[in-house]
Amino acid sequence: MTDTAATAATTSMGQEMYELIEELYPIRRSLTGDGVRETIRRVARRVPFETHEVATGTSVYDWVVPNEWNLRDAWIADLEGNRIVDLQESPLHVVGYSMPIRTRISAAELRRHAFTLPEHPDRIPYRTSYYGEMWGFCLSEKQLHALSQDEYDICIDASFEPGHLTYAEFHIAGETNEEILLSANICHPAQCNDGLSGLALVAMLASRLRLRTLRYSYRFLLSPGTLGPLSWLAANERRASRIRHGLVATCVGDRGAMTYKKSRQGAAEIDRAVANVLATSGEEHEVRPFVPWGGDERQFCSPGFDLPIGVLMRSPPGEFPEYHSSADDLRCVSAAKLEDSLQKYMAVIDVLEGNATYLNQSPKGEPQLGRRGLYRVVSGGSAGNTAIDEQALLWVLNLSDGTNSLLDVAERSGLAFARIRKAASQLVEHRLLEDAPGVTG
Amino acid sequence: MTDTAATAATTSMGQEMYELIEELYPIRRSLTGDGVRETIRRVARRVPFETHEVATGTSVYDWVVPNEWNLRDAWIADLEGNRIVDLQESPLHVVGYSMPIRTRISAAELRRHAFTLPEHPDRIPYRTSYYGEMWGFCLSEKQLHALSQDEYDICIDASFEPGHLTYAEFHIAGETNEEILLSANICHPAQCNDGLSGLALVAMLASRLRLRTLRYSYRFLLSPGTLGPLSWLAANERRASRIRHGLVATCVGDRGAMTYKKSRQGAAEIDRAVANVLATSGEEHEVRPFVPWGGDERQFCSPGFDLPIGVLMRSPPGEFPEYHSSADDLRCVSAAKLEDSLQKYMAVIDVLEGNATYLNQSPKGEPQLGRRGLYRVVSGGSAGNTAIDEQALLWVLNLSDGTNSLLDVAERSGLAFARIRKAASQLVEHRLLEDAPGVTG
Amino acid sequence: MTDTAATAATTSMGQEMYELIEELYPIRRSLTGDGVRETIRRVARRVPFETHEVATGTSVYDWVVPNEWNLRDAWIADLEGNRIVDLQESPLHVVGYSMPIRTRISAAELRRHAFTLPEHPDRIPYRTSYYGEMWGFCLSEKQLHALSQDEYDICIDASFEPGHLTYAEFHIAGETNEEILLSANICHPAQCNDGLSGLALVAMLASRLRLRTLRYSYRFLLSPGTLGPLSWLAANERRASRIRHGLVATCVGDRGAMTYKKSRQGAAEIDRAVANVLATSGEEHEVRPFVPWGGDERQFCSPGFDLPIGVLMRSPPGEFPEYHSSADDLRCVSAAKLEDSLQKYMAVIDVLEGNATYLNQSPKGEPQLGRRGLYRVVSGGSAGNTAIDEQALLWVLNLSDGTNSLLDVAERSGLAFARIRKAASQLVEHRLLEDAPGVTG
Repeated sequence: MTDTAATAATTSMGQEMYELIEELYPIRRSLTGDGVRETIRRVARRVPFETHEVATGTSVYDWVVPNEWNLRDAWIADLEGNRIVDLQESPLHVVGYSMPIRTRISAAELRRHAFTLPEHPDRIPYRTSYYGEMWGFCLSEKQLHALSQDEYDICIDASFEPGHLTYAEFHIAGETNEEILLSANICHPAQCNDGLSGLALVAMLASRLRLRTLRYSYRFLLSPGTLGPLSWLAANERRASRIRHGLVATCVGDRGAMTYKKSRQGAAEIDRAVANVLATSGEEHEVRPFVPWGGDERQFCSPGFDLPIGVLMRSPPGEFPEYHSSADDLRCVSAAKLEDSLQKYMAVIDVLEGNATYLNQSPKGEPQLGRRGLYRVVSGGSAGNTAIDEQALLWVLNLSDGTNSLLDVAERSGLAFARIRKAASQLVEHRLLEDAPGVTG
Repeated sequence: MTDTAATAATTSMGQEMYELIEELYPIRRSLTGDGVRETIRRVARRVPFETHEVATGTSVYDWVVPNEWNLRDAWIADLEGNRIVDLQESPLHVVGYSMPIRTRISAAELRRHAFTLPEHPDRIPYRTSYYGEMWGFCLSEKQLHALSQDEYDICIDASFEPGHLTYAEFHIAGETNEEILLSANICHPAQCNDGLSGLALVAMLASRLRLRTLRYSYRFLLSPGTLGPLSWLAANERRASRIRHGLVATCVGDRGAMTYKKSRQGAAEIDRAVANVLATSGEEHEVRPFVPWGGDERQFCSPGFDLPIGVLMRSPPGEFPEYHSSADDLRCVSAAKLEDSLQKYMAVIDVLEGNATYLNQSPKGEPQLGRRGLYRVVSGGSAGNTAIDEQALLWVLNLSDGTNSLLDVAERSGLAFARIRKAASQLVEHRLLEDAPGVTG
Repeated sequence: MTDTAATAATTSMGQEMYELIEELYPIRRSLTGDGVRETIRRVARRVPFETHEVATGTSVYDWVVPNEWNLRDAWIADLEGNRIVDLQESPLHVVGYSMPIRTRISAAELRRHAFTLPEHPDRIPYRTSYYGEMWGFCLSEKQLHALSQDEYDICIDASFEPGHLTYAEFHIAGETNEEILLSANICHPAQCNDGLSGLALVAMLASRLRLRTLRYSYRFLLSPGTLGPLSWLAANERRASRIRHGLVATCVGDRGAMTYKKSRQGAAEIDRAVANVLATSGEEHEVRPFVPWGGDERQFCSPGFDLPIGVLMRSPPGEFPEYHSSADDLRCVSAAKLEDSLQKYMAVIDVLEGNATYLNQSPKGEPQLGRRGLYRVVSGGSAGNTAIDEQALLWVLNLSDGTNSLLDVAERSGLAFARIRKAASQLVEHRLLEDAPGVTG
């Protein structure tokens, strides 16, 4: 795919991602259940992700796959039968993995099972309790205040039965079997930025990358949080050892600046690649150290795996006001920001794909770039050819002694990797550079 | 001793330290002599410090123990016999180790032997000249200006005879014979912050630590500056090699913020332990690099020993206005600040005692903390149990791969060591952590 | 040479350097040719530099020595014969290495061969095109605007024939054959700061250092840019491997603050020596990382050589407004700034010559400096002897454990190397220091 084709193609990618989020938004998702399956089915219409099912009771390291939970209906009604709270209005109204219940209950008792966001009285919180064996309703503070009667009829019609945990995987074979992992979660109901945006980005990346010739193999994983990555890791320990780089995609559609949370390793190639892309973007951004809480990186970066996987996002989870509430809706994400995030992911992949170590073939003194058309003709002027980037050429020549990769050159020079990569390609063409023997990456 | 008992006990410790300083303040101390012996005797009523005497003429590395000096009386009187300057009013009036003299002298000649603090006309400076073979009076600038007559009678009634240099030592045997050294000087006369505060803190630490079960052995040293530590080192070279950590206590009672002067090694465990305690105290503080001047750390950190010993103080010597003058009196120290300093020393000792390296027993992915009661039940809430510190638990689990000590975990997480230590203990209890084999500290 | 003699001698050195620049200013220099030879001849009257000639056609790594170029005359005249532009007025009027031409030409065509500085309408730019096989005039924007007629007669009377590239070398043998290289370029016509100032400084350094007893051998190289250093390197590869430290001198006469561009190695002894001299000068200065563009360091620091050679200058090339124009004339440099730059070079050489690693002979505790007259007699006072620098003495003693050179001591203490060196010499005298066996530098 040429650069021009790529640009043309991406113009509409943000919109395409937004439309996928729109389509998936109403589906009721949870850790397990039909909502997850339906979500995967819709994605698979675009990219042939393969579904995996892990049976209830399966041991996954320190965990056990729980019963499958499917929520059919739920409501709170006054004694006249008026529904105060109704699942049909928001999939957030029931605490995820609530036990089924149908009873008449005092308002006081009901309040003990009600979750609200006092600081945002119009919003419904998003809450789960996968292992709490409890039940609960999530409602707006306003709805809670409206519970003026003494008793209410409540219903959570949920099945809680042996079944499966479901996740999806898509693989692209590259020139080597070294892999790059891209992962997003698919368990959050009605959360556009924290959940669906990452899913849409991973799906879009898969659909674009399968059109390219690639050095690395790529694995795309869509799975419910925590148990999803753990299930994949447990089933694929040997494959996991081939992962050279990875990113967890989440919160990539909001208005915030790009933020990168480093891998546990901290100075892995993925960490350096992302840092170079963001630092040379000319845009506000933040690079943060690893912390052991967050999303699926908690599992990938546990000490028994310690994979070089970071999180490339916009506003981090918990740091945008709509987080884990009904306000994380379609207005929280935009096609433009989704597209911008995708471009950053693509640029990071370009670094990983294009990084290599070369040997300057004319290392004693500078080679005479002028006679190769790679240098200005008259001193004090410019090369007169916008394809000639003298600074990048000189950096690549100077540092290509076999100990520096192009990413090292980009870091030391402070230049964008793309400029360094292009200069290196020109020098290879002029036989001034050759692959450093026995060095990869 | 339980935590509660410890807290109750320490409430009055600052006051107890202040009272010891009050008691020792009037005693005339110097490099050698009966004042040092009397000082040790008073301390030994509280903690059974053992006295050591090193005879005059003993070689101590590049030095030789000098004659013992005892000052009986000293004065400057006008020819009518009125005492202008009188040792009874301040032990500072005579330059330490002055040669004895009794004569009539011109005011001009007397001025050549007079030391004042022109910028503080009411204060008497503290001066010594252990090897100068001279004599001198220290007086206030006001007293100097009052010398309006032509001649004066002067007397320094001091003995200068073969005797001993005296120091005191107290030892607590711990589980191992690896030692922690706590050292303070006992040679300064009438200096409450620079001298007595350190002595009081070391004595108080000794009295508290002897009640505890300890991993390390502890050595407490009270000795005159320079020659005291050198004499101890010369007599205990083998023991010195067992010192794993140490602190010199000085200037711990004044109103200034805590200041730490690192050991010569700079990144020793003691340096990191103190830095963590101060950084997580939420209080103003300063950590400084080692410099080869100062107090007894000059000897401990000489290149032939290079012991991991720093100085934990409040205002550094020379950096509070009362330093080395009659103004460093009882008003310069307070029970509250002495107590605060002691608490910092105790916290540092807790780091050293509690530091260890563990192995996460469930390193692949996160263990399921929730079913062990170590994690919140409903997402978005808290653990609902103030004893559960999820951040600390996750840090300890994530970094306990056998290469990180708990102090490493505290440093990387930026959390107080006490939080990390407590989380580790809970995880050990739940068999999620075990001692890393063959790793200590 | 004693310190006093040195100071007296240097008082007039700035003036002497300025006068050399004045003498060399009118000579027409280029990459090759008689101007270079004449320049060397004048320098050789002061210091017996030896001339080397490299024949046209000689391969120099990736380059080939071009034809020799000698410019006899050049002008632009209107059809009445009035000279609008005349080489006699400035050697800058012809683009260096212009092909010869004599013809009548349209003003439009002439403008295509004219170089000006639009932002400085009075200045003539300095331009070269060594390999462009073109011709061109450099003129002021005012002169360009004055070309109001339709046609002009132009003449560039230059010879372009097989000959030589010329450079000059001077060597001082020291106690060892390890070398320090000092290099300046001699190809720039009519550029006082960027070119002649470096040449004058290198020549002056050579004339002073040959009077001293030196540990290192010194090589002084005056050569045309790029091909000069390359030619020397190609002819002296074995000698180049003996270079331990080096500086490229350029732009050392202007009013700017001292600026150091580090060697490619970045932490070589030369880099640390210069950093210490500048940091302890109390003057504004800047230390910059290596970049692969600039002057002759491009060749010395190419990956095949990677010599520890930096650039010690005032305003960097391109960063003062007169750069590469007729304004870089005698007003751009001053005797005072030339002298100041020379003093900095001398101080750097003093670091390199004086750096050594010692062993404290009394490493356990501090030695008793007082009885050797190296310490104050009364506490709280000063040593009373300005020759005694207690801080420097204590730093040298504390760090002289065989692992730290005096430059290490200077860096850790933050003191000027000269203070450290002097303290070390006093300690050697008192047998408190001895050479660390088997350690150099």
